[in-house]
Formats: sequence, structure tokens, C-alpha cells
Amino acid sequence: MVRFLSVVPVEEAVRVATGLARPVGTEVVQIEEAAGRVLAVDVTADADLPGFRRSTVDGYAVRASETIGASEALPSIFRLAGRVSMGAGAPFTLGPAECAYVPTGGEVPEGANAVAMVEHAEVLGGEVLIGRPVADGENMILPDEDFAAGEVVVPAGRRLSPQDVGALAAIGRGSVEVRRRPVVGILSTGNEVVPVDAAPGRSEVRDVNSYLLRAFCRERGCETRFYGIVRDEPGALRAALETAGRECDALLVSGGSSKDDRDLGARTIADLGAVLVHGIALAPGKPTIVGRVGEVPALGLPGHPASTFVVMLVVAGPMLAVLSGDTTDRSRRVRARLAENVPSARGREDYVRVTVRDGTARPVFAKSGLLNSLVRADGLLRVPAGREGFETGDEVEVLLW
Amino acid sequence: MVRFLSVVPVEEAVRVATGLARPVGTEVVQIEEAAGRVLAVDVTADADLPGFRRSTVDGYAVRASETIGASEALPSIFRLAGRVSMGAGAPFTLGPAECAYVPTGGEVPEGANAVAMVEHAEVLGGEVLIGRPVADGENMILPDEDFAAGEVVVPAGRRLSPQDVGALAAIGRGSVEVRRRPVVGILSTGNEVVPVDAAPGRSEVRDVNSYLLRAFCRERGCETRFYGIVRDEPGALRAALETAGRECDALLVSGGSSKDDRDLGARTIADLGAVLVHGIALAPGKPTIVGRVGEVPALGLPGHPASTFVVMLVVAGPMLAVLSGDTTDRSRRVRARLAENVPSARGREDYVRVTVRDGTARPVFAKSGLLNSLVRADGLLRVPAGREGFETGDEVEVLLW
Repeated sequence: MVRFLSVVPVEEAVRVATGLARPVGTEVVQIEEAAGRVLAVDVTADADLPGFRRSTVDGYAVRASETIGASEALPSIFRLAGRVSMGAGAPFTLGPAECAYVPTGGEVPEGANAVAMVEHAEVLGGEVLIGRPVADGENMILPDEDFAAGEVVVPAGRRLSPQDVGALAAIGRGSVEVRRRPVVGILSTGNEVVPVDAAPGRSEVRDVNSYLLRAFCRERGCETRFYGIVRDEPGALRAALETAGRECDALLVSGGSSKDDRDLGARTIADLGAVLVHGIALAPGKPTIVGRVGEVPALGLPGHPASTFVVMLVVAGPMLAVLSGDTTDRSRRVRARLAENVPSARGREDYVRVTVRDGTARPVFAKSGLLNSLVRADGLLRVPAGREGFETGDEVEVLLW
Repeated sequence: MVRFLSVVPVEEAVRVATGLARPVGTEVVQIEEAAGRVLAVDVTADADLPGFRRSTVDGYAVRASETIGASEALPSIFRLAGRVSMGAGAPFTLGPAECAYVPTGGEVPEGANAVAMVEHAEVLGGEVLIGRPVADGENMILPDEDFAAGEVVVPAGRRLSPQDVGALAAIGRGSVEVRRRPVVGILSTGNEVVPVDAAPGRSEVRDVNSYLLRAFCRERGCETRFYGIVRDEPGALRAALETAGRECDALLVSGGSSKDDRDLGARTIADLGAVLVHGIALAPGKPTIVGRVGEVPALGLPGHPASTFVVMLVVAGPMLAVLSGDTTDRSRRVRARLAENVPSARGREDYVRVTVRDGTARPVFAKSGLLNSLVRADGLLRVPAGREGFETGDEVEVLLW
């Protein structure tokens, strides 16, 4: 089914693309391999953490009430009843006017309800002088204060950070259920496109997009499968898309830069499934296709790398996140002041490449079709469809690469 | 040599740690595997890119001077002398009052010096009417406009982004010289520390730091080698450090939380090399050691995961960057307004865990020694040593995780 649709707003294109995606299945991995993977189910604590009353300082466990009014001039005096060793528990109970030495991380003995820091204590023979009052619970953690039994420690949908992995270790989870890595199939098309190791003939260009797309998808935690540079010939493209559709969770078709080539892409995707969006009110990136091959979501991307990259950030990124089951917002947005006017046409979202230094955003002079701006810029300034650009001095939000 | 030094400012600790590190050696990788690796040498373009005069639109190549004064009412009229195909070059030269169709990305023929967009052209039989003037060079890219022969395309020291890999592909570099991944040796110490799959006895805790450190180092592009949980016993720690020092480019020793344990770490590092910093004016993270085992830089980290993580971000991160030959600043800093007062002691840098939502930073109530704040916060607010905190409404900079 070929539908020639009108250009749609970015928001709608994203809605359609994410609507086509379904989270992939799951697998179990050891936590030392889990960083960067997406947690598939909430992980809860089996037991309280730390599970015992833990001192946060090197000091003396005491009854807080017995330090009321203590000062350097008139300290409270305690009998040193014992010393707690790390990892050995506190096998005694403190009575009135007794204290015990507890190292940082050690257990606070029964009978005590606070820890006075060594800095405020003086040891004289078998006695300890505490020169400052401590409050009930001071310098200690309660047994369930870090995580309580049954509490969600890391929620489903989180792309696991090093800290998350640390928290999983803390509650004793040696392995976790994560989403498998989505497999993204990548096809390059265009008669003008030659492999990277070929010397381009006159007016030919090297295949940049397949490298750009592979690196982008892997950065987002996907596996990639490359189906080569397909000639602008209906049978070849159809065969490649059919194979890729059977083997992958999503497809990215990097178009040639000519209109004929793009139309071939759209017709072939339509024949094998459907084209739902054909053209986005987005610059650069307008000639984008959102569709499916069978039930597999497929994006037809503009031929030029700079345009393709904007579409990857704005449309493909959210789609890959849904496939990955990833609900973490890891986008890097910063606010900055504009150093120059940025004109823009009303009615489309413009993404302007900018550098950001010391809070100042400066547009990179980027003629359409140049690749160097992608390497030189730090990110993209989005000009909403309803605006005719921004002025020097405006505070803007930049999406860092 | 044991040197008991006084607490040093964060800046000095970072200077010492980075001064101990030397960039590791290099290896050659295919560019499809190069994303995230650090480029070891400047990569320059062998030839101009695109290497031919390339149209950035679908349109008609013309002599700009022949469109002066053109309007819809009074268009300039050209004879359609030919059509350029993608990737096939433009094997003809335009004469006066001649034009040629050129698709986006196609070569602009000799004789022409601009391209008029199809939107401003009308074809009538063998003639094309151009209804708007174009300037010299409009809608086309010059042969060396993306990259000129000899120009640096991606500089040494860059951790390669997807876009960088795309640029390498564009200039035909199928492989590049990158730094090998530094090998970081990780040791956990502490008698109270048990493996993750063990049920902690009373007042024992699981080994969180080795997981946190492995994930952190891998996120920074390093390989890691784990030397296990070493008992607080001089011979065991010494043997493990000697082995690790022979096998690794840097060492991270996660201390137990007690003072005795930390002192053992410092003495052992001093015996095998030197301790250069013992204590940093940093909270959390004060009991940190910067030293070397032989010539291999070694950090002794505080036992508590939250403190360790701050030291990793603030001190170890820059050290690993030097080892990696990485000069890219990929830190994620955002400006935000404080929702609450943040008190701090003058004379030390405080790193306060905060959430950031819609431009507002809110401190996470984080008792020293709690792990949950690392999972719940979005990043760290740095309070410089010279300040006594911040007030509600202050604009602050947050280092996102």
C-alpha cells in the first residue's frame, strides 16, 4: 500500500515511530556484565539494608540521654565496656554510663542509641570523656534506613548505571533480568554510494551512513546487522528488506540523496508493509519515512549524514528506547545564551548545529550537505515549529550529542 | 616510605593523580569498532571532500549571472542541455543560456556556478524558466568545502563519537590508530566485606565497591581485572598489590571503612612505591590515598560506596582520562536553581547529591553512609572550598552522573 502523505509535525512522527515498536524479550545476566543494560523488572530488596545499626563514624557508642549538657569543660564520663570489631558484630549490651568503641561501618551495640565522634572524646585509662552532646540516632544508620525489605531498589526500565549495579550488589543480587539487545538491521542505498575502502569515482561518495548508524545504535545498546550497499534497483532492495525484516527488530534504510532513490525506498517499504509517514516538518531531515516491513518498524532516512543524524537523534532515538524497554532519560540538555541570531522558518522544527562554550551557544555555519559541522559542533539547538528563530542573547536549550 | 601528609585541596589531589598517569600504547582498529575508542593521532584528509562541486538541492545548474533580475513574472529562460545522474559525473559543459538538471548530491557541470531549486523552476518543452535569481555558489558545495586535503578531520585525543566515525568513513579511513584500553586492577579490602552471593553475617556487608568500580571504569573505556576481596592482613594485601601492579596500568584499592584498614592500605602502598596524598579536603571522600605501586598509579578509596563514587568522579575520572589519552570533555554539567539551602563547611569541597527536574536542583537527604542516594540522585552539586554553602534560589552547576 503506497500512501503519499503530507509532511507531519515532528511530534506526530515520533508518536508513530514509537507506536510501531514493542519492547524486545529478556535474558538473565550477571551484574558485572549488567551496566548499560536495561532492567526488565523491578528489583526489590529481600531484606533490610544494612540490616544492623551501623556507625557512620569512628567513635563511641553511648546512650544519647547521658550526654545532655556535656561540654569540654564538663564532659560526660563513661566506662569503656568494649570495642566492636569490623564484621564481627557487637556481642555485648551497654549498661548505664557505659560506652564502646565502634569503627566506621561497625555495629552499634544494644543499649546504645548514638555514636559520639572520636574527635569529641578523650580516653583516660578505662574511662572515656565525651565533650559534646549527641542526639538520639546521631552518627548511625538504622537497619532498614538504606533499603527496607520489599522496597524497590532499581525500577524496571532503568538503563543500569554503575551506581545501580552497586545497589544491586549491596542487596545481594548477583544476576538480573534485562532486555536483550535489540537487533537493528541497516541498509545503505544509492547508486552514488561506494564502500569506504573504494576510491570514489567522479561524483561518487563513500558510504558514511552505515558507519554512523551502526555506531549510533550500539551507543544506544543495540546490536546491528549490516546488509550492505543496495543498488537503486527494486528487486535488490526488496530482497534485502525481506531478509532483514525476518532477522531484525527494527530496520534503518539510509537513502541515497536523490528523490528517485527515496521514492524507491518508500514504494518498497509500502509493498512489504506500510508507509505511515512520508516527510517530517523538520530541517534537516524532511525526507524521512516512518513505516514497517511486515510488523518490523522501519525508518527511511535522508541520504545526507547530517540530516540522517538529526533524524536519528529526534525520531530513531525514542523508537530504539521503546524497543529496548528503556524509560531512562539520558539526554544531555544544557541551557545556554545565544551568541548570534538564529533565523528559522515558521512551520517546521529546525535543528541548528551549535558549539557550547562557557554557557554560550554559537551556531556552526553549516551549509546544508556538509559533514564537517557534525564533527565540529557540540550539539543541536531546536527551534520549535511555532517560532521564527531566536535572537542574540536568548536563553536556549541545547541537546548535546 | 610512609609519609603522613596533611589533607590537600581537591585540585592538588587531581594534579598529583593525573601527574602519575601516562597514556597507554596504541593499536589499530577497523572504524566499525572504533566508536568510543580514543584516537591516538590526528587523522587528516588525503584528498578534498566532497572532491567535486556537489549540488545540495534537486534543481537546475545555471550561470548565476544569467538569473539576475529573474522573477515569476519575468523568468530567465534556459535551454535544458542535459540531466546529471547520481554517481555518474556531469560529462558535459554548459554554454550560455543553458542549464542542466542536477539531483541533490549530484555533480554541478562545468560552466555552471549555482543551482536553482526545482521549486523555482518551470519546465516548458526543452526550456526551463527560472523565476528567482540565484547567487554565485548558491545551493552547491565546493570540492574542498567539507574537508580540504591535509586538513585535520578528527584530532588525536578525541573519544570517537558516531559522527566522528562517520567523518572517518567519509574520507576513506577504514581503520585508525587508537589507544588500547587501559587495564585497571581492582582490589576490595575489609574484614567486614563478603562476596555478593554470600549471606552477610551480623554486621558484615556485601562487596559493593568492586562492582561499582568495574562498571565505572568500563563506562570510561577501560578493561578491568578484579583481584578479589583481600583480608585486612599485610601479607595478603602486599601480595595482591604486587601481582596487580605487574599486570595493570592503574590500581584501585577499595578500602574497608575502618581507620585501621585504611592505614594498612596506606602502609602497603608506601612500602611498594609511594603515598603522595593521604587525605583530601573533600566530603564525602576525605580518606583517599593517591600513590603508586612501583610506577603504576594507585588510588586508595574510602570504603563507603557513596564516598568512593565521588572520588571516582572527581579524582579517578581525570586520571583514567590521562591513561586513556582522552582529552574529550564529556562531562555532563547543567545549570539549575536550588530549591533548598545547602550548608557546607568552608575549607573543603562538598559534593552534595541532588535531583534535577525542570531546571530545579534539590538536595537528596543523604546521611553519610547511605547507598540509596546514589540511585535516587541525578548528580552532584559541588560546593567550592571557599564557600559556606548555597542558598535557595542560587543558580548552581550540577555534574550529572
